[in-house]
Amino acid sequence: MLHYCVLGAGHGGLAIAGHLGLMGFPVRVWARRPESLAAVREVGGVFLEGEVEGFGPVRVADGLAEALEGADAVLVVLPASAHREIARRCAPFLRDGQRVLLLPGRTGGALEFTHVLAEGGCTADVIVGEAGTFPYASRRTGPCLARIHGIKRQVLAAALPASRTPALLEAVKSAFPQFMPARWVWKTSLDNIGAIFHPAVALLNAGRIENTGGDFRYYLDGITPSVAALLERLDAERVAVARALGVGAVTAREWLAEAYGVERSTLYEAVQVTAAYADVLAPAGLDHRYIHEDVPTGLVPIASLGRAFGVATPITEALIYVAGGVSGVDFWQAGRTLERLGMGGWGPEQILHYAMEGDVIDLV
Amino acid sequence: MLHYCVLGAGHGGLAIAGHLGLMGFPVRVWARRPESLAAVREVGGVFLEGEVEGFGPVRVADGLAEALEGADAVLVVLPASAHREIARRCAPFLRDGQRVLLLPGRTGGALEFTHVLAEGGCTADVIVGEAGTFPYASRRTGPCLARIHGIKRQVLAAALPASRTPALLEAVKSAFPQFMPARWVWKTSLDNIGAIFHPAVALLNAGRIENTGGDFRYYLDGITPSVAALLERLDAERVAVARALGVGAVTAREWLAEAYGVERSTLYEAVQVTAAYADVLAPAGLDHRYIHEDVPTGLVPIASLGRAFGVATPITEALIYVAGGVSGVDFWQAGRTLERLGMGGWGPEQILHYAMEGDVIDLV
Repeated sequence: MLHYCVLGAGHGGLAIAGHLGLMGFPVRVWARRPESLAAVREVGGVFLEGEVEGFGPVRVADGLAEALEGADAVLVVLPASAHREIARRCAPFLRDGQRVLLLPGRTGGALEFTHVLAEGGCTADVIVGEAGTFPYASRRTGPCLARIHGIKRQVLAAALPASRTPALLEAVKSAFPQFMPARWVWKTSLDNIGAIFHPAVALLNAGRIENTGGDFRYYLDGITPSVAALLERLDAERVAVARALGVGAVTAREWLAEAYGVERSTLYEAVQVTAAYADVLAPAGLDHRYIHEDVPTGLVPIASLGRAFGVATPITEALIYVAGGVSGVDFWQAGRTLERLGMGGWGPEQILHYAMEGDVIDLV
Repeated sequence: MLHYCVLGAGHGGLAIAGHLGLMGFPVRVWARRPESLAAVREVGGVFLEGEVEGFGPVRVADGLAEALEGADAVLVVLPASAHREIARRCAPFLRDGQRVLLLPGRTGGALEFTHVLAEGGCTADVIVGEAGTFPYASRRTGPCLARIHGIKRQVLAAALPASRTPALLEAVKSAFPQFMPARWVWKTSLDNIGAIFHPAVALLNAGRIENTGGDFRYYLDGITPSVAALLERLDAERVAVARALGVGAVTAREWLAEAYGVERSTLYEAVQVTAAYADVLAPAGLDHRYIHEDVPTGLVPIASLGRAFGVATPITEALIYVAGGVSGVDFWQAGRTLERLGMGGWGPEQILHYAMEGDVIDLV
């Protein structure tokens, strides 16, 4: 029986740890703030409600070393902006044969995690992979209670390099049959729809978010025809970058059709009739993951790839600077540029080959 | 007695034409839409209320040729985005000794007007100049009625080249004693505060403007701490570009202190206590001069100068692209780049010399 470790105890982490426990897998959970797991420690697990009901036994780890020790699969359920730091902290403790799966990786997650492990001196033979999205729709509804609203039927995942994807998914398929192999991480990384819907909408509604504390419907009020017009141009840049890498990324409109069955001729109309968006409120402020996660792990790597592959991404780059202008953060420094993913100065061929095969070809 | 021609019959044009008439100057007025002057034609002038009260006789011109014929001074009181088109249409009718004053020119107004006159084959010896701002606070309050809320005590103006500024201001000083000579058009052009307050605030409140029809206070609700933080960075870019040209531009905060006597340590605080801003509502939509005038005649020339003088303007450029993303307009094409001002490929020395002396130095 596979031993699981879950890093993170937010909306996703608590639900997935509880569900694994309920399914009978030995599971340890770790959180950056140990106090957030006090109740789970006390009752010895997580209560589940919603799509899955019951009690899942979960052990709370005392520290990252204990969390990782003996785990066959490490599920990273943290904001992608924390991947770098978590990889650095995991590097000393990972061992041969362990698998690390980022749920999700956003854009460049597996690449960053792998690069930082190597930088941190980790020489263990670890398989690192990423999913395109989190496999559940879930909420942490109490200190040791999670609600699973739905379990997605199909989620793409890939390992780095792609040749190891089968080994990764084979290991976790008893718990996660919905993971389907993507061709490589460029597919999971470039289907990043959050990079389209999150920073741009927050920035084009920045004044309203801050002035009202987010008291409006994020999608329905925030995505007006002009905002949607910009989102379509932003999305076209992402899809063009993907195409330059040989990846057929889904457009935001195709994604709404796939995920919610909504088909309209413009993104504006599609968003307005997406039932799942109807009640979603705006964030209470701009110091939010829509900026601090999605810009550095979404827009920045997409723009950086655009530069490497000669694809212009003016709207993507503009939003990175505007996000910097409102927050004071230099997202080009903080974000996943190819340089920070360990691929500085690489040419297109090297970038593509590395994701597929895991070695660096010499192009002298 | 100087003969005046006023081009434009909006909030500024109607007030200034009426005031000139009231002061006893012969004045003809022309508007792009002749029907907007039907009432003025019928009563033979403009009624004034507010700071100035009475009736100013004004003749309505039948066409641009008649408007310009025999005018000593032509006051252009139109959105700066119309300057190019108006210059093109004026080119055949301007004669030696006439003076054209753009009220205001925004950034690069006199340069653009002069360039387009030459392109249009105008060889007359015309003095073209620009003011940094419109000399009145006024509103068109009826078909032949204007309210002058206030007359600014001091407004900088400059001719192109600077050597002709005294001749320009001497001519109009009996009507406009408040015009003070700026060193050259780079001062009037780079003190463009509208370029700071208009497009950025509209874009960072784009969703709210379109979703509510502008039902919020533009400055007080729209300029939150994060929006103001971006404005300060945007303003710093403008001031840095100005400094590279040897121009000591006022910052937005200094301008609030000068114009409204408001002094605070941050732009956010200063805006929040500026009484003149308290009741200003947002525009009803994004198809508005805050985008369609201030981006092409404010942000674009500032960014273009930044490139020519090696000053990075990332926030300025980002906003140009975001404005394009919501509107579908390529503002780099439509706007006042140095290329479109007739200075494509010029070096800093040539750009500076031309504004001062009016001739192009050869730097071979």
